[in-house]
Amino acid sequence: MKQYIEQNKERFFEELFSLLRIPSISAKADHKPDMYACAERISELLMEAGADSAGLWETGGNPVVFGQKMTDPSLPTVLIYGHYDVQPPEPLEKWRTDPFEPVLGPDPATGEDAIWGRGANDDKGQLFMHIKAFEFLVRSGQLRHNVKFMFEGEEEIGSPSLPAWIKAHRKMLAADICLVSDTTMISESVPSINCGMRGLSYLEVKVTGPNKDLHSGHYGGAVANPIQVLSEMIAKLFDADGRVAVPGFYDKVVELSRAERKMLARAPFDEKEYKDFLGVRELRGEKGYTPLERTGIRPCLDVCGIWGGYTGEGAKTVLPSEAHAKISMRLVPNQRSAEITKLFAKHFKSLAPKSVRVEVKPCEGGDGFLIPISSSAYKAASRAITEVYGIEPVPSRGGGSIAVLAEVQKILGIDPLLLGFGLERDTIHSPNESYLLKQFFRGMESIALFYKYWNK
Amino acid sequence: MKQYIEQNKERFFEELFSLLRIPSISAKADHKPDMYACAERISELLMEAGADSAGLWETGGNPVVFGQKMTDPSLPTVLIYGHYDVQPPEPLEKWRTDPFEPVLGPDPATGEDAIWGRGANDDKGQLFMHIKAFEFLVRSGQLRHNVKFMFEGEEEIGSPSLPAWIKAHRKMLAADICLVSDTTMISESVPSINCGMRGLSYLEVKVTGPNKDLHSGHYGGAVANPIQVLSEMIAKLFDADGRVAVPGFYDKVVELSRAERKMLARAPFDEKEYKDFLGVRELRGEKGYTPLERTGIRPCLDVCGIWGGYTGEGAKTVLPSEAHAKISMRLVPNQRSAEITKLFAKHFKSLAPKSVRVEVKPCEGGDGFLIPISSSAYKAASRAITEVYGIEPVPSRGGGSIAVLAEVQKILGIDPLLLGFGLERDTIHSPNESYLLKQFFRGMESIALFYKYWNK
Repeated sequence: MKQYIEQNKERFFEELFSLLRIPSISAKADHKPDMYACAERISELLMEAGADSAGLWETGGNPVVFGQKMTDPSLPTVLIYGHYDVQPPEPLEKWRTDPFEPVLGPDPATGEDAIWGRGANDDKGQLFMHIKAFEFLVRSGQLRHNVKFMFEGEEEIGSPSLPAWIKAHRKMLAADICLVSDTTMISESVPSINCGMRGLSYLEVKVTGPNKDLHSGHYGGAVANPIQVLSEMIAKLFDADGRVAVPGFYDKVVELSRAERKMLARAPFDEKEYKDFLGVRELRGEKGYTPLERTGIRPCLDVCGIWGGYTGEGAKTVLPSEAHAKISMRLVPNQRSAEITKLFAKHFKSLAPKSVRVEVKPCEGGDGFLIPISSSAYKAASRAITEVYGIEPVPSRGGGSIAVLAEVQKILGIDPLLLGFGLERDTIHSPNESYLLKQFFRGMESIALFYKYWNK
Repeated sequence: MKQYIEQNKERFFEELFSLLRIPSISAKADHKPDMYACAERISELLMEAGADSAGLWETGGNPVVFGQKMTDPSLPTVLIYGHYDVQPPEPLEKWRTDPFEPVLGPDPATGEDAIWGRGANDDKGQLFMHIKAFEFLVRSGQLRHNVKFMFEGEEEIGSPSLPAWIKAHRKMLAADICLVSDTTMISESVPSINCGMRGLSYLEVKVTGPNKDLHSGHYGGAVANPIQVLSEMIAKLFDADGRVAVPGFYDKVVELSRAERKMLARAPFDEKEYKDFLGVRELRGEKGYTPLERTGIRPCLDVCGIWGGYTGEGAKTVLPSEAHAKISMRLVPNQRSAEITKLFAKHFKSLAPKSVRVEVKPCEGGDGFLIPISSSAYKAASRAITEVYGIEPVPSRGGGSIAVLAEVQKILGIDPLLLGFGLERDTIHSPNESYLLKQFFRGMESIALFYKYWNK
């Protein structure tokens, strides 16, 4: 595969860039045509890579791209999941390059080459590795598996349509393993395989005070200010130990044994380096857990956005009518997204004083999941990565969420395997998203070797 | 004057609307040309009304319009202050009509005719009454005063240039009284004269956590979220009794005597009506004071705006780098704006945990002031209003701020008299600003009569 990459990399860039140029932002309704354009382009790439068939499937939301190559029904089948939708690029002013005009260039910090643009990693760059590893196996006559591709366009908004579509096409999707590259490794020098991800519960809240914006001089002091009230309600969402103060929130959280925590602690972590990378003097989190545990095995709550009143240039003395926030909770196994959403909504409303009205609107959600390390797929992946990196990967737990994978596990009865090649430095979901070229190529090599070593 | 209004009102509307159509928003730098256009138009109107001279004076910021008619140096001189700049119109989607395309139409709630548009009341509509009362006196040969007009273009941003300009033109501005129509009355049936206004201290704060926006799944739980921290800091700005929790904030506040509070309590106030007008079930404010006291004789603090993270459509799972808020404090006599700004900045920074960095930027400010009820000007105004309304006006205390009036008092050594004809229903600073036609006309009549009854 290494040689094949060397001979074809210019074409690879051209093809990937053709995907990155399409602003397939699922969170924004007016990007619908881009969703279709991007799905069509992926379908073309699958056919060019050697699929027997590929096409767009309507879901009610954005289309799923499904393609396959059936080598021999008696051989094991790999189902590849990925997503072609991306996060909104805002804040635009913080990008050094146009988010939808991808470029190849050095990292200003390290000088190493990377691909820059929204989706360079998450997930267009990572799903593209699978298409190219497949192409290599087909063209070199080494493919000894059946391969199915399922790429959705709604991952960044919580995959609202995919579970029903999977249920309806259960037979077509039948496979022995589900391969996913949509996560990170601990670092280049500490390759890792993700054995679990957190679930998600995402809500929007609105606090309404007076029925119109008021002059803060005429009413200030006598009328509850909804920004003040919302701030006070948000402040009450944590207790003094940094625990989420929603009653029942931790009830079903699986506490890990000392042995399990010890194994996870094998992942190297330098708190000073971590703080320097983030530019903070102090970390913050739940008492009694390490930073890696807080982002891996423990649930959390974050305000992802807040707005209200006058936010423009200069001074406007207004006592606003409304204040809003977007709140995400990352969940760990056994916490059910639907249940946590309900607990939060109930608690949040109970925090509201009589001087305001509160609305809570659930936005998206999904459960977390765990993957057994003892499986043949984990072992094959470990062997492949060891060969490419020269280091045995460690098992890790991802803090992010891919809502639909718990559904894949439930509906298709197969385990997902998370072969992620992203790094922290890639700043996915943020300005200047990128994908380190070395990881992009090593990812393709590792995936090709996975096929070599895996048999169900 | 009543008859003059009847004969000329179509022209009055045309002239006022020509001012309202100019979006003279001082908070936005790109409206500079509108500031000049509006100032020029006012200068024209002054000349047409009968001024000896009128023109634009550079201040370093937006120009001051100054015009005058010197009838006889031995007669008393009236200086009229007003401002031609307006508040930003946002949120635009809440306006029923274009904010800068004024219309005459009925109030949907009461059916009474009003002028609708940004500035209809504050302050273009109110300063216009003075120009027309002056025109009437000149044309009917009744003017027995010298009259000077000083209209600035930076009131809504705290009058940064005017005090220096007044100092530099002290002689030209010499007068015996400063008339201002830029405030409200208690109600149509309870006319009032404003005897004091609150000062202002306005700041912008910024809380920075990590040096870039982060994926809330990868970092959520381990890194302080600046929105969370800002919310917690804002929550700490009040104590359990609804008092501003900035140390030293109340140190210089003048406590009113029981007799003074009793006199102010003569202003009728129906809490149920007030709550219904605002659409709230419960009021909120400092313990031990009535709502009118809280907005009149007591200082207060309001968050006028807050923003951070993702505020667009849909769900973006981001742990943002920054969170911002705009905070205004309304001050009462003896609280100095500059001192309160310093106290706030010091306290706010002390609330910040080590996991974030905090910046506090002062935006604008001005001191409050009081006006003696025993003055000849107050008495003349009271007589004029009694004649027009058929009811004796009550003295009141305004919650808003006209930063520059304390400066007028200090530099020119004359008292301002606040002849405001706005009503709560006018929702100045908010969408659908309007000015009740009846008040607009009664204001002109009252002002004309003030000249009749006032002698220094």
